[in-house]
Amino acid sequence: MLEIPGEHETLTTPLQEQLQQVQMLFQQQLASDLDPVNALCQHVEQYRGKMLRPTMVFLSGLAVKGARWSDQDLLEQHRVVAAVTEMIHMATLVHDDVLDDASVRRRGTTVNHLHGNEMAVMLGDYLISNAFSLCSSLDEPWINSVLGNVTNTLCEGELVQLHHRDDLQLDRDTYFQIIRRKTAALIGACCRLGSMISGADAVAGERMDRFGMGLGLAFQIQDDILDLEGSQEVVGKSINRDLANGMMTLPLIIHMEQLEPEDRTSFSELIRTRDSGVLLEQLAQSGAMEAARNHAMDLVRSAKQDLEELEDSPARQMLHAAADAVIERSF
Amino acid sequence: MLEIPGEHETLTTPLQEQLQQVQMLFQQQLASDLDPVNALCQHVEQYRGKMLRPTMVFLSGLAVKGARWSDQDLLEQHRVVAAVTEMIHMATLVHDDVLDDASVRRRGTTVNHLHGNEMAVMLGDYLISNAFSLCSSLDEPWINSVLGNVTNTLCEGELVQLHHRDDLQLDRDTYFQIIRRKTAALIGACCRLGSMISGADAVAGERMDRFGMGLGLAFQIQDDILDLEGSQEVVGKSINRDLANGMMTLPLIIHMEQLEPEDRTSFSELIRTRDSGVLLEQLAQSGAMEAARNHAMDLVRSAKQDLEELEDSPARQMLHAAADAVIERSF
Repeated sequence: MLEIPGEHETLTTPLQEQLQQVQMLFQQQLASDLDPVNALCQHVEQYRGKMLRPTMVFLSGLAVKGARWSDQDLLEQHRVVAAVTEMIHMATLVHDDVLDDASVRRRGTTVNHLHGNEMAVMLGDYLISNAFSLCSSLDEPWINSVLGNVTNTLCEGELVQLHHRDDLQLDRDTYFQIIRRKTAALIGACCRLGSMISGADAVAGERMDRFGMGLGLAFQIQDDILDLEGSQEVVGKSINRDLANGMMTLPLIIHMEQLEPEDRTSFSELIRTRDSGVLLEQLAQSGAMEAARNHAMDLVRSAKQDLEELEDSPARQMLHAAADAVIERSF
Repeated sequence: MLEIPGEHETLTTPLQEQLQQVQMLFQQQLASDLDPVNALCQHVEQYRGKMLRPTMVFLSGLAVKGARWSDQDLLEQHRVVAAVTEMIHMATLVHDDVLDDASVRRRGTTVNHLHGNEMAVMLGDYLISNAFSLCSSLDEPWINSVLGNVTNTLCEGELVQLHHRDDLQLDRDTYFQIIRRKTAALIGACCRLGSMISGADAVAGERMDRFGMGLGLAFQIQDDILDLEGSQEVVGKSINRDLANGMMTLPLIIHMEQLEPEDRTSFSELIRTRDSGVLLEQLAQSGAMEAARNHAMDLVRSAKQDLEELEDSPARQMLHAAADAVIERSF
């Protein structure tokens, strides 16, 4: 789980219970009458992470109830949507691990050893399909529609990112367009759906979406930063993956912006060597790392303002804390 | 398009018009505000094939109207479902082309040269996501639900098939379980949905589903046969792919069944050499190829019987002709 400081005990326990139910829904949905399929789905457990998306569904669902909240306000629809969004997220993780033929050698050891690319593709497809199938069981076409649009957007973000692979001149606008689509849109939808299932109107849903988008952008920037300066043991996954994949991230883009045109070529060369030690030194000296961190902090600050209209409540406080946790985390 | 003998002129033109509208829906749905995404979607055009699934949606929709059919009976729902099923099918084609890291060397030249594995994965995901999103636009949860179940089944079929890769002892039951799920279920759903959108009740829908399943099984067996004995120029895609991928198909399974246990090892060796010339000779001598062909013919015969309860009509005749065409085709 995302580590949210434990000052909101009234909420921690109900939230944990809800998240456990999400896990159960998740496993029930993926259960197959075919043993090989079940064996693979157990493999997916290794991707289980911070449960950020389900947490956002629940907290948004409660926060719009204001001071009159009760944990009875969380409905089966919240739990199903929470499971669906986590399933979509896991599908993207599984598919992100698929190896490009161009990168077999350099990334060969980091990828799903057990089953190979084709299995990873099909397993991801199984997750996506089950996500939509579970979502359809709600009999609420508007929810299908919101999530269908979000997954379209998500794939567009991934496609544009791949299109700009090894484009070391990637500009800030395109970078934000990519992360808005590939990361922030789904988190925004979690907040929108969580609140609207609790009865929030479209305007309030839109505001919650904006909160989630801001939090999601900040989350991605922090991921970028950790990929550059984190330690593999703490982050819990390979670092320097963006460098290895030729994906420009915010600290690098900011640094590049500050350089004179004639210095850009040598910085590009440095990026290509993937010498993260020297890179980090330069990013620290130019202040680019700090600027990226500040940008994430600004996004969190402005996201919190989107919650201003909500009555104070433990859920709203916890959303604030979650937004802070997103940029304070070291994993 | 699937080549259905042109003796049903009353239907050929309206069907062509409907299929053109499906293409338009298809392109409209995939259109993005992002140029790189649009460029990739054009790449998908190369996968455009026989339009078997949309054809089944339309013909099933008309056939249940019996002698009182008119091309006005085809509704927007038919066209959307037709586009959705074709999109799902194309996604599976794109994902089938993803290269396993274990097979980089042997299949390196056959795969998507332009964009690599990761792009193929994301493009397939974009197709799946848009299929569900387009489907949700119908506001008919039951259709989402039928198609969600079918795509779950489809992925299960693919996963089980991968699980049995290089399993040269694959038995007939497991083989049929795989092709029922990975190929036949979607074609069955096309017939079920096409007929039910035209007002058929659940029992009639079930019967149409059975027809489509039978046709789909026969289609897959014919694909297996063409993969062994077809010529690449006529089939229009690489042949011997099943052999290269370690997938046992019906002619090979039947041949293996007939061998004494002590002869199976040497036949397995022969399969591993992928010497299709010698293989074909043995399959012809043992009658295994003929037996596989007969099995497909039996399936077509029995599928046609599922249409007995329908009143005679051009659409029913064309479904008969389509069932025949599935096993008579050489591509």
